[in-house]
Amino acid sequence: MTADAFYRGRRVMITGGLGFIGSNLAHRLVTLGADVLLVDSLIPEYGGNLFNISGIENKVTVNVADVRQASTMNYLVQGREVIFNLAGQVSHIDSMRDPHTDLEINCRSQLTLLEACRHHNPGTKVIFASTRQIYGKPDQLPVTERHLVRPTDVNGINKAAGEYYHLVYNNVFGVRACALRLTNVYGPRQLLRHNRQGFIGWFVRLVLENKEIQVFGDGSQIRDFVYVDDAVEAFLAAGATDTVNGEAFNVGGEEHISHRDLVKMLVEIAGSGRYTFVEWPADKKAIDIGSFYADSSLFRGRVDWKPSVRLREGFARTFEYYRKHLREYVPQ
Amino acid sequence: MTADAFYRGRRVMITGGLGFIGSNLAHRLVTLGADVLLVDSLIPEYGGNLFNISGIENKVTVNVADVRQASTMNYLVQGREVIFNLAGQVSHIDSMRDPHTDLEINCRSQLTLLEACRHHNPGTKVIFASTRQIYGKPDQLPVTERHLVRPTDVNGINKAAGEYYHLVYNNVFGVRACALRLTNVYGPRQLLRHNRQGFIGWFVRLVLENKEIQVFGDGSQIRDFVYVDDAVEAFLAAGATDTVNGEAFNVGGEEHISHRDLVKMLVEIAGSGRYTFVEWPADKKAIDIGSFYADSSLFRGRVDWKPSVRLREGFARTFEYYRKHLREYVPQ
Repeated sequence: MTADAFYRGRRVMITGGLGFIGSNLAHRLVTLGADVLLVDSLIPEYGGNLFNISGIENKVTVNVADVRQASTMNYLVQGREVIFNLAGQVSHIDSMRDPHTDLEINCRSQLTLLEACRHHNPGTKVIFASTRQIYGKPDQLPVTERHLVRPTDVNGINKAAGEYYHLVYNNVFGVRACALRLTNVYGPRQLLRHNRQGFIGWFVRLVLENKEIQVFGDGSQIRDFVYVDDAVEAFLAAGATDTVNGEAFNVGGEEHISHRDLVKMLVEIAGSGRYTFVEWPADKKAIDIGSFYADSSLFRGRVDWKPSVRLREGFARTFEYYRKHLREYVPQ
Repeated sequence: MTADAFYRGRRVMITGGLGFIGSNLAHRLVTLGADVLLVDSLIPEYGGNLFNISGIENKVTVNVADVRQASTMNYLVQGREVIFNLAGQVSHIDSMRDPHTDLEINCRSQLTLLEACRHHNPGTKVIFASTRQIYGKPDQLPVTERHLVRPTDVNGINKAAGEYYHLVYNNVFGVRACALRLTNVYGPRQLLRHNRQGFIGWFVRLVLENKEIQVFGDGSQIRDFVYVDDAVEAFLAAGATDTVNGEAFNVGGEEHISHRDLVKMLVEIAGSGRYTFVEWPADKKAIDIGSFYADSSLFRGRVDWKPSVRLREGFARTFEYYRKHLREYVPQ
């Protein structure tokens, strides 16, 4: 059975379902004919946005709830055959200002969800959205899953713990689970309201508003990027097979690009915005990791997936989306 | 200055100070002339035991408190030049039954202590008691610090997160910290009341009570052991130098021994007890890691430390201690 066919009539749940990746996944699952439950806390400042499900609002079930709330999660997981676990606090900066909240959301809540599955739906399958951030500053490039986990901030630590919980619940309690370590995901429906959730959404906004992007240092640090539709396909592939259970996989893009070349490309594609190079702010430098790009061959050897959207195409689509809907993402 | 001289008049604090390693460290620090504050929650079933400071009770300050309690920790850390952070929930079995409590004590409380230091005593130095358990089942032996962190139970995950927090607070906030990944520590003042805190204390008790040790499987799994006095010296060495800041180090023993040979040796030294081989219980097999011994050369290259107590001598001293004081450790 193909991954697409697998989801027809399938009862799935997405935590963080109104957020960036979660809502794109929801759109795709609706197209595939799945029965989709979206769980989201809609905490202000986080990525959840009701506009993200515009067009499918009558084809999904939305349940506003916080993944930290155990009794709610105990109820909601019941009968859900696949759980895409994407809820999280994703700001590295916030995690250093308020580490306890980051721990509650990224660490404790994962345990709450997994305990809910263990006791109320042990036959389910959980796909956890992890992050390249857990590797910290790479020893060598590209980074494989054999690289040490060595987070440089509290957010990375809590995401690492969240990932480990999933693998242990798979191995010890038989709650099937795996983790996808995403690199830099971009595309429609990402939060643009503030710059504390990574640079890419913020760069897109500045270009759209014809403002200046400040690149830290000389912009030589390299990254890889995944267009959100490709990330969605990775989640779908992982959810539809048991060949990935109990493991963590890099999910990155094929094109590596420096910040310098990236901002140049963004300005060129959009035909607006500009950029300049500035000194590293001390607090950001302290948790910077230099260049990073991932080797995703382990995942690609296990499932039928590869990124299909090239950078230029992906950013063109991204700008097109936000040009239409910017006011839904940026307070006027 | 030698590590010994360093502690004269030094204001130190030990979390978990009434526990096994903490109390042995306290005895040594009193001898060295330090000003010692012991913080312990004295939670029943955990390792804290007032008898552990018998003989030095008038030379230390005992403050009963829970490391989870932020305002208390904010107060207690003030003015403490070195903090030995040993408080923890150490039962792997308990962590799988009640993962949230393990998270609170091993993960959240580390953040609470480090936040207390960051805001109320940023000049202090913290030495965190980590564990070989974070490595999980080894890919190769001996295990170096380059081995992946891949915990097999919730306790291992939370200890790993606790360790990472210390390193991040060192690197980002300048709260000097390091972590010692201890292998199997044994010796006087260890909890013997139940068998949920690792096998070694339990084996010692069974031998002392002239009972039968049940060895799982064929007993071929290998371990290394550290006599508690050697572990204490490792903590003292780490606390007295800045050459270890921001890193995690293996602290293991030099002799590797199979469970089979270990129990044979224990029975022989004690002149009591016996042993038999039984099938692995399923719940224990699920989190077993096979053979493990650590390479401690990174730590030994950084500080003046090596284990000095051989296994036979260490267990002879251990039996001698408990023969005198068994009723303080085992309810009659």
